[in-house]
Amino acid sequence: MLSIIGLGINCDPTLRGIELMKEADEIYYETYTSPIDISKLNALSKKLGKKFVKLERRDLEEDVEKFVARAREKKICLLVGGDPLVATTHISILLEAEKQKVKYEIVHNSSILSAICETGVHSYKIGRVTTIPIKEESFDPESFYEVIEENLKRKLHSLILLEARDETNFVSINEAIERILKLSSERGGIIGENSLALAISRLGYSDQIIRFGRLGKLKRLKFGKPPHSLLLLSDLHFTEEEALSRFLR
Amino acid sequence: MLSIIGLGINCDPTLRGIELMKEADEIYYETYTSPIDISKLNALSKKLGKKFVKLERRDLEEDVEKFVARAREKKICLLVGGDPLVATTHISILLEAEKQKVKYEIVHNSSILSAICETGVHSYKIGRVTTIPIKEESFDPESFYEVIEENLKRKLHSLILLEARDETNFVSINEAIERILKLSSERGGIIGENSLALAISRLGYSDQIIRFGRLGKLKRLKFGKPPHSLLLLSDLHFTEEEALSRFLR
Repeated sequence: MLSIIGLGINCDPTLRGIELMKEADEIYYETYTSPIDISKLNALSKKLGKKFVKLERRDLEEDVEKFVARAREKKICLLVGGDPLVATTHISILLEAEKQKVKYEIVHNSSILSAICETGVHSYKIGRVTTIPIKEESFDPESFYEVIEENLKRKLHSLILLEARDETNFVSINEAIERILKLSSERGGIIGENSLALAISRLGYSDQIIRFGRLGKLKRLKFGKPPHSLLLLSDLHFTEEEALSRFLR
Repeated sequence: MLSIIGLGINCDPTLRGIELMKEADEIYYETYTSPIDISKLNALSKKLGKKFVKLERRDLEEDVEKFVARAREKKICLLVGGDPLVATTHISILLEAEKQKVKYEIVHNSSILSAICETGVHSYKIGRVTTIPIKEESFDPESFYEVIEENLKRKLHSLILLEARDETNFVSINEAIERILKLSSERGGIIGENSLALAISRLGYSDQIIRFGRLGKLKRLKFGKPPHSLLLLSDLHFTEEEALSRFLR
């Protein structure tokens, strides 16, 4: 039996998640699809009196057959930050489980995709979601920019997730704004220093920061530890404007 | 102190939610923004040894000042199905709390907006979300149809939520398909009996049903109790197709 258990945006498991962890023979976690607060994770491990073993990407991708095979005889839990299947990479684990006829259960939890609505933006005004990945020498994609422009043209907000591998290696709100402004300027686009956005750091944590304002201003503020994200805003409904004004600084 | 606590898609509260409920002086719930499984809710109330009081829409809209004022002196919890702020109606409770200087906390939980990814569709290929409301004599909106067509033209999937007031008064998958096909035919639209979709009933419950197929076939299947929803599909990536084929019947 294999359980894939979401820890939500702030490492707050559900009752069903806890129940499965208590019964488990082995508990694993990964932090590469979505970050997990390690101090909270350690506290959980201690409270349950169970060891949590960290897996790397290759353990769940190249060695997925081996990982799933362990769940034939044993009760295995895999802990994932956020809502576990949003990162499409784990779908292959489910397909492998079906192939090996291993029973599985998904325990859903909170995700930035819905938690963002806490700010007051209307969920049905959010367009396609996109991610800005960490820039590497041989990898500097620009496709996120096209998604944002297309959403804007349709008068929809853009939820922009910023990749975070760990607490030091992540795309910050500041870097994301710089990259968006550079692409818009190069392409003669419609996004500029005056475009409105919501900058969100560590949503759901006790040290969360939410700021509403123009890109030119937001890019100069500090947002602390990851995960960061950005909601580039289109025209606002007056009730959205009222709710967002809480975050004006 | 006011806590708005999400119960997720299948009434499975988080540890933080439980902690706040244990400390609460009064616990309320509402089922009009998102349905809650009442038998699971009753089991939770019994387990905690606390009474849960049902609120109606007017208690949280017309009487929002009174509701928030109770939280000035007491610890009040409001339980909501899904992730609590996705229904924009509760933003007004937060704004009232800020006005009255009442402290509040949001406990996020799972939502269909992200849980849908369990099926294998890629989250970044889902366009704007829309809802099909219950049809009334003086209320038969068609705006959901425009959202679906616009998504399709951009090669994006459409997540279509179906309103459910209770177990007998809800928009079923079958009714939703009929209404979409009728509007498409009236407007010379591009959606027809051959359009591909994913029909989802009671996602996250032990009796969940997920079916993948053409609208002409899906509209004749049975999907049981609400909540129902529909994902109208655009072009599929081959990994989406592989994952969705699990639900072909």
